[in-house]
Amino acid sequence: MGRKDTVSTPLADRADDETLDLDPEQIKQLGYLASDCIGEYFARLPQLPVFPQTTGDELKNLLSEPLPVDGQAPQEILRQFEQLVIPGCRQNAHSRFWGYVSSPGAIIGAIADLISSALNQNVTSWRSAPAAAQIERLVIDWIKQMVDYPSDAGGLLVSGGSLANLSALMAASRAKAKSDIGAGGLRGSPSQMMIYASKEVHFSIEKAADILGFGRDSVRYISVDAQFKMDVAELAGQIEKDIEQGLAPFCVVGNAGAVNTGAMDPLDDLAEVCRKYDLWFHVDASYGGFAALAPSAKPLFAALDRADSLALDPHKWLYIPIDAGCILYKNTEQARRAFSHSAEYIRVLQESPVESFAFFDHGIELTRRFRALKIWMALKHYGARRLGKCIEADIRMARYLAARVEQSDDFELLAPVELSIVCFRYAPAGLRQKIAASANDRSEQDQINEQLNDLNTAILNRLLRGGKAYISNTTVRGKFALRACIINYRTRQSDIDILLDEVARIGAELAPQ
Amino acid sequence: MGRKDTVSTPLADRADDETLDLDPEQIKQLGYLASDCIGEYFARLPQLPVFPQTTGDELKNLLSEPLPVDGQAPQEILRQFEQLVIPGCRQNAHSRFWGYVSSPGAIIGAIADLISSALNQNVTSWRSAPAAAQIERLVIDWIKQMVDYPSDAGGLLVSGGSLANLSALMAASRAKAKSDIGAGGLRGSPSQMMIYASKEVHFSIEKAADILGFGRDSVRYISVDAQFKMDVAELAGQIEKDIEQGLAPFCVVGNAGAVNTGAMDPLDDLAEVCRKYDLWFHVDASYGGFAALAPSAKPLFAALDRADSLALDPHKWLYIPIDAGCILYKNTEQARRAFSHSAEYIRVLQESPVESFAFFDHGIELTRRFRALKIWMALKHYGARRLGKCIEADIRMARYLAARVEQSDDFELLAPVELSIVCFRYAPAGLRQKIAASANDRSEQDQINEQLNDLNTAILNRLLRGGKAYISNTTVRGKFALRACIINYRTRQSDIDILLDEVARIGAELAPQ
Repeated sequence: MGRKDTVSTPLADRADDETLDLDPEQIKQLGYLASDCIGEYFARLPQLPVFPQTTGDELKNLLSEPLPVDGQAPQEILRQFEQLVIPGCRQNAHSRFWGYVSSPGAIIGAIADLISSALNQNVTSWRSAPAAAQIERLVIDWIKQMVDYPSDAGGLLVSGGSLANLSALMAASRAKAKSDIGAGGLRGSPSQMMIYASKEVHFSIEKAADILGFGRDSVRYISVDAQFKMDVAELAGQIEKDIEQGLAPFCVVGNAGAVNTGAMDPLDDLAEVCRKYDLWFHVDASYGGFAALAPSAKPLFAALDRADSLALDPHKWLYIPIDAGCILYKNTEQARRAFSHSAEYIRVLQESPVESFAFFDHGIELTRRFRALKIWMALKHYGARRLGKCIEADIRMARYLAARVEQSDDFELLAPVELSIVCFRYAPAGLRQKIAASANDRSEQDQINEQLNDLNTAILNRLLRGGKAYISNTTVRGKFALRACIINYRTRQSDIDILLDEVARIGAELAPQ
Repeated sequence: MGRKDTVSTPLADRADDETLDLDPEQIKQLGYLASDCIGEYFARLPQLPVFPQTTGDELKNLLSEPLPVDGQAPQEILRQFEQLVIPGCRQNAHSRFWGYVSSPGAIIGAIADLISSALNQNVTSWRSAPAAAQIERLVIDWIKQMVDYPSDAGGLLVSGGSLANLSALMAASRAKAKSDIGAGGLRGSPSQMMIYASKEVHFSIEKAADILGFGRDSVRYISVDAQFKMDVAELAGQIEKDIEQGLAPFCVVGNAGAVNTGAMDPLDDLAEVCRKYDLWFHVDASYGGFAALAPSAKPLFAALDRADSLALDPHKWLYIPIDAGCILYKNTEQARRAFSHSAEYIRVLQESPVESFAFFDHGIELTRRFRALKIWMALKHYGARRLGKCIEADIRMARYLAARVEQSDDFELLAPVELSIVCFRYAPAGLRQKIAASANDRSEQDQINEQLNDLNTAILNRLLRGGKAYISNTTVRGKFALRACIINYRTRQSDIDILLDEVARIGAELAPQ
């Protein structure tokens, strides 16, 4: 190669303290160290309190330190991690953890995350990560098969349900808008676009309506029946009314496992309403979707394939470590039209359809982790049958909990158990008799319920601080509910017995004599 | 506990094939296996082609398989991974990888990701992950210190720059809107809200404007000067004009390391314009921000603290594995007002300010990985000083590349090198003389440039297929540019020499005689 001059540049080469490189043997040793750390963690786990016995201020004092200027050895960092961080964690992998909708991850998924981060693939597109992109597309195909979604549907992995729901509403609005709102914005759109969901829908729908500029008021909350399923007649009536008033309904969101109680909306009926009014049908199956793998639950998911988009969270009931969310679009071209932009520095040079595929044309993120690897490895290691068995057992554990609640004089079941969420409360016989006796006195009933709400709030706080089991709470028709969501492959009946014994013990201590 | 009846339930307990549990020894063994896998990967890495010698169809055929119904052993899966997946990856950790803005991750970050996924913390809030939430808040404090951002600012980790920029524009719009657009939506807002950025801004800003409902047309692209920095006079003029026309400017986006060339916008001047017109000042420092740790670059970032929000990507120039993005808000209460919603099942029972803190009140996601762990471990292991030295060396490597380009008769530098991005093209002496000779003939010049664009496109394609080095491309003032972004702690001068030799060799082969 020609040179204008041959004077060598005075710029120094990279020095040894200007790299973070390790040799392969050091990398292995570091990996062994971390493997021992997690192995020992799981050995100690059964003895750890499920929720840490600490406070915000204590943890803050314990963990605060100035920005490290010089480094320390990995051994020291791991020791600090074991001594200070682990005891401050909620132990989501514990057999008695049933809070919110959080599963213990499968260990093979954590192994996959190590490899994924070591290779540091950036799965923006095929071009940036050919094999990783191909594996993600394969995993999306597998997910479609697991929930019987059409094989020509598209989709991608996202960080979780919030992003999946946001992406779905984005695609829905662009597909159904009467003007080019992507370019011109919502301010100039001919009419206010409206979203419909049951009162039990996850709050990420309202948040998405806010983020997307439709406004939180654009979400119409439809009543639910005694099983917490959307009232389809009310839905159709509200849509009619809104159209008459010049509003523009564009999307109905159905729940396939509502977050409070696990209720399944009548998906087929909702799909029918959407067909009639030409609306986008989105199903939020973030919690429930993979229960389609469990024989006893499969029939509930028969109409999933009628959804235009489907939010699913492998990091919930497929036991994949966080984050592994998924959005499926029945018509992938509609998603592409909503999200596709272009810029010079990401211009695609390839011409083959596989090689020109870009995930950023179908979603919000550009840089993306190799999330598919942990799903790929977990599915290959366990197989869909085994995962389905674990889910089936979770459902059975939930039925066991519900049965024990119903058999007991101290407890009251607050909602039907459709999947694996159990809402109940401690309600000793005395108070329940009082409620029954005051059937015609609403204010007397309200007063007792208020008393029970306070009692169960206090029970929950003491239960969590005690560390024997972890559940969360919700409100079911004005009643404060203890809520156990069992998506935990370590849970056995003895764990549930311990929970109920503990709640009853605390309840007896706290209950007014 | 009292019972209504004592007949035991017929529900069976969890069987052994209904769990994914492993004993601690099995977990360690699995970790060792994966550690060997990545150790051996790094041993082979220098010999691997940087871009895989494959095609989309080939990879698809190789990797396709039906949904696994039954499982296979981890050893088999890892073998398949090594044989089929690794050779199909772009090797982002290779010393000659300089594509887009992608760094090799530090191995300690991958180790942290193993641990993070094993513990499977869900960092929605303090309540859900006390120690992890505290570590994230600590890491945010460290990040503020590294870039000299005010200590009372808030923020959180996100998946990357796209989410950071989206979050910033969301917070900006809610803070500056004249009506309650969060509830009522944009359609009823009194005037069209407008965003200002240079023509060099990342496309995620336009995408965010689309997602948020302002529309892509709401982004005003301001011209840049010869150094690719925003023209401040044009910015002020455009804002004045828009206000006169009844539009509502609300946000200016400055680049701290623009994605095409690495240019730094005149941040102090932009801040002054924002102050004058009461606009939100967002700085996209996703690529460049951590160069504030490098002594030679630090002065460029003097005005960062004037930004109302700041997008930073630890997974870029802090060498943290993907995903580790960050958004900082100067006034954390403004962010909270934009994002805070509430729902029964996430009602916070705690009263202490630390314990009632929720990340979902300040961003888009609910479920969130324990992203902070890898930053915490990397900073503790290497210290900020060492990371700054690596960044400084990257900048020096970029200067070395630029110097060699300028010294050569075969190359042309297409943009100044402000941080570590080098835009250049192969332009043999003959063609450059022709351009110089046709100084007064624009169409002749255009024709030669067109020829050079085609030539460099062909060079890039052949270079990438050859696998010796990886760079990406962009367009600089109509010229197709070869673009190397050096944020790679493994790169030495010899790597850059190989790149230029290879480009020159391919160029000489392809150039018209």
